[in-house]
Amino acid sequence: MLTPYLAATDKFRRGSDTPRDYLERALDKLDEVEPRLKAFTALAIPRARIAADMSTRRWKSGTPLSPIDGMPIGIKDVIETFDMPTSMGSPTYEGWCSGRDAASVFALREAGAVILGKTKTTEYAGTYPTDTRNPHDYNRTAGGSSAGSAAAVGAGILPAALGTQVMGSIIRPSSFCGAYGYKPTVGAINRGGSHDYQSHSCIGVIGASLEDIWATAYAIVERAGGDPGSVGLIGTQTLGAAVKPARLMFFETPGWATADPLAREGLMRLLDRLREVGVQVLSRHDEPRMEAFETALSDVRELGSNIISFESRWPANSAKYRDSLGLSPLMHDSAARAAKLGLDGYRACLEARAQLRQQFEALVREVDAFITLSAPGAAPHGIQWTGDPIFNVSASVLGAPAITLPLLKVGSMPLGVQLIGAQHTDQQLFRTAQWIRSATH
Amino acid sequence: MLTPYLAATDKFRRGSDTPRDYLERALDKLDEVEPRLKAFTALAIPRARIAADMSTRRWKSGTPLSPIDGMPIGIKDVIETFDMPTSMGSPTYEGWCSGRDAASVFALREAGAVILGKTKTTEYAGTYPTDTRNPHDYNRTAGGSSAGSAAAVGAGILPAALGTQVMGSIIRPSSFCGAYGYKPTVGAINRGGSHDYQSHSCIGVIGASLEDIWATAYAIVERAGGDPGSVGLIGTQTLGAAVKPARLMFFETPGWATADPLAREGLMRLLDRLREVGVQVLSRHDEPRMEAFETALSDVRELGSNIISFESRWPANSAKYRDSLGLSPLMHDSAARAAKLGLDGYRACLEARAQLRQQFEALVREVDAFITLSAPGAAPHGIQWTGDPIFNVSASVLGAPAITLPLLKVGSMPLGVQLIGAQHTDQQLFRTAQWIRSATH
Repeated sequence: MLTPYLAATDKFRRGSDTPRDYLERALDKLDEVEPRLKAFTALAIPRARIAADMSTRRWKSGTPLSPIDGMPIGIKDVIETFDMPTSMGSPTYEGWCSGRDAASVFALREAGAVILGKTKTTEYAGTYPTDTRNPHDYNRTAGGSSAGSAAAVGAGILPAALGTQVMGSIIRPSSFCGAYGYKPTVGAINRGGSHDYQSHSCIGVIGASLEDIWATAYAIVERAGGDPGSVGLIGTQTLGAAVKPARLMFFETPGWATADPLAREGLMRLLDRLREVGVQVLSRHDEPRMEAFETALSDVRELGSNIISFESRWPANSAKYRDSLGLSPLMHDSAARAAKLGLDGYRACLEARAQLRQQFEALVREVDAFITLSAPGAAPHGIQWTGDPIFNVSASVLGAPAITLPLLKVGSMPLGVQLIGAQHTDQQLFRTAQWIRSATH
Repeated sequence: MLTPYLAATDKFRRGSDTPRDYLERALDKLDEVEPRLKAFTALAIPRARIAADMSTRRWKSGTPLSPIDGMPIGIKDVIETFDMPTSMGSPTYEGWCSGRDAASVFALREAGAVILGKTKTTEYAGTYPTDTRNPHDYNRTAGGSSAGSAAAVGAGILPAALGTQVMGSIIRPSSFCGAYGYKPTVGAINRGGSHDYQSHSCIGVIGASLEDIWATAYAIVERAGGDPGSVGLIGTQTLGAAVKPARLMFFETPGWATADPLAREGLMRLLDRLREVGVQVLSRHDEPRMEAFETALSDVRELGSNIISFESRWPANSAKYRDSLGLSPLMHDSAARAAKLGLDGYRACLEARAQLRQQFEALVREVDAFITLSAPGAAPHGIQWTGDPIFNVSASVLGAPAITLPLLKVGSMPLGVQLIGAQHTDQQLFRTAQWIRSATH
């Protein structure tokens, strides 16, 4: 069960619940599921209890530092925390301590949030898996790369956790674990001290509700801004009321043909329901430019992989120099891809990406959002493969905000519905998502 | 005396000199001057000797890895090296080891360069000084923030050293120490693992010749690219022949009225000499749009300081949390400035910067370069103030490439002539600089 935080804060004000009690419930859940779930690499329980006690005092005195004051939160283990190692899902970083907080983590502390632990990631936030299990079926993957963050939220331990996405590392694991997930507009959340260096990588939030996610993202950006040189997340502290979309565009994402037929049927039923309540749902069949755009996207996985391989050569090359056996075969493959691409090939990829973004922005601004599945199906069996990110690569490459809503099921497993919006319209996308959640739940 | 490296490599090929001998001469010079100069925080002499020996073999067998194979180089102590601490000029980072090379440093090693040591920086590459002395007068500052890099090159220890500039941290100390200096187009040199996080900060090179600098910058970018998402330094490995400029624009930089009259006279004589040999030298008096642009720049120091303060809150805030007395009063001032500015104020600054850049690019593309002094005068007396960066802030904020040439003197002290070009025209600017050096030397 997801355990939203903002919904609990009224009780903190009234004194019928406290952030410390909220934390102890999270710790009870952690004790119960973590031995099999394996969502965390490190925990800071004594410091978390002190932070929750301090927050309890502030809520009682009516002086919370922010709407998320006292919220226990997990930090993906590629993002630095001064009190815990940042291990990058790699033996090359095992036990590595930077001694400082990332910009986002420091902002969360300033907002009163309780930094409970570091959550497991695949190797360097890439493809080589970690051992985190899916909270809905321990025999399945939690997805990746933000595996521990999605699992901890999906298991009901935490109301929110930070993740990062450069291919499909937030939206996909959120979908697999039945959580809400948010990958912002590129640059919207300050990545200082986060080891996701690629040019379209983003810090995002996985959470138990849209409201918790928005409040978390906003609390960070209010204090830390976006990436240097970016305007950062645009919006207001309070998310505001749900807004009914007039028009949605069904996005037949690259890889659509590979989707589980049950998953596709689930989405089609949801789209029919939206039509029934008066939302216009368009597709490539209504809009030739959309068909052309989807065709232009057909190589987006290759494009994304090329860009990421080139931008990921460092720091892997430096790690390899010291410890070649510390890197998986996949990291060696990525280095080979980058070498083959070269600087000129990389420059051509940046140009291709810029053109796709132009094409996308023109289309998406004519509707309220693109809508599609968050993954081709439920979480795969086993933990040796984190699943296919192909349904998420487009929003990543396009630098567009994306949200996954845990609205579908395939058998007993959760599956997300993905909304994608224009750059810098993140708050509108949340309000559209709120409406769709209510209308289809 | 400056000791260019590329000029020596013919002898390496012929066998009449070797990179190891070149290194030993550098170490002799180091032994002689370093006790008073104080340019280094750490040295890696055994590893440097091995690297030079390996390079010696390669030159002898005709297989150098790059034109700078074997070049001893210093690394500003905000840029990570796997074998030496990165101390950031701050007690908050004293002895801090990341255990990895920055992207630029790893690229230099791949190119065969010899990483000799870490060079002193002001606190967090900001304004609070370090104790480095000026090689031309130990009673004066070397400038900042790339103090040790400029001093080591100016003293004739090294042919090249990496610096960073966000206000005036490469061009100013180079000018003070009689070295050549280069601040590239924003984004041109990969900053991975360099702790200069601000949006218009750049890694650049201070060197004993234009050719050494270009070869160093090119060797890095060929292997590491630019910042993620940037095209990186555009150009060819060989700099090519000097190119006579048809037109130069005398840039009456903000702060011009504060320039030492002797410095101004020196520049005016140089401009007269250029006119004599057929170069058209324009100024605000010839071009009303230039006058308007210079007027628009009058607040550029304030604009730059605001942007930098906001983008520098992290990681200073995290360091302050652990060690408040580890930060200078100037860092506390910067945090106060950022708090006053706020996110909305910061966004307005980004917009103002974008407008200035547009205005600049339109003007600079009508000439071969802007030309002005590299600093208001020679290095100030004492080491408690690194001098005024105001002549350098414009190029920094504009994201434009800048080069300083050690062509002038004020008394016995060196002073640089600064050239500024359009974004991504760095190589043309070098070739213009080569011609001006020859024509006025």
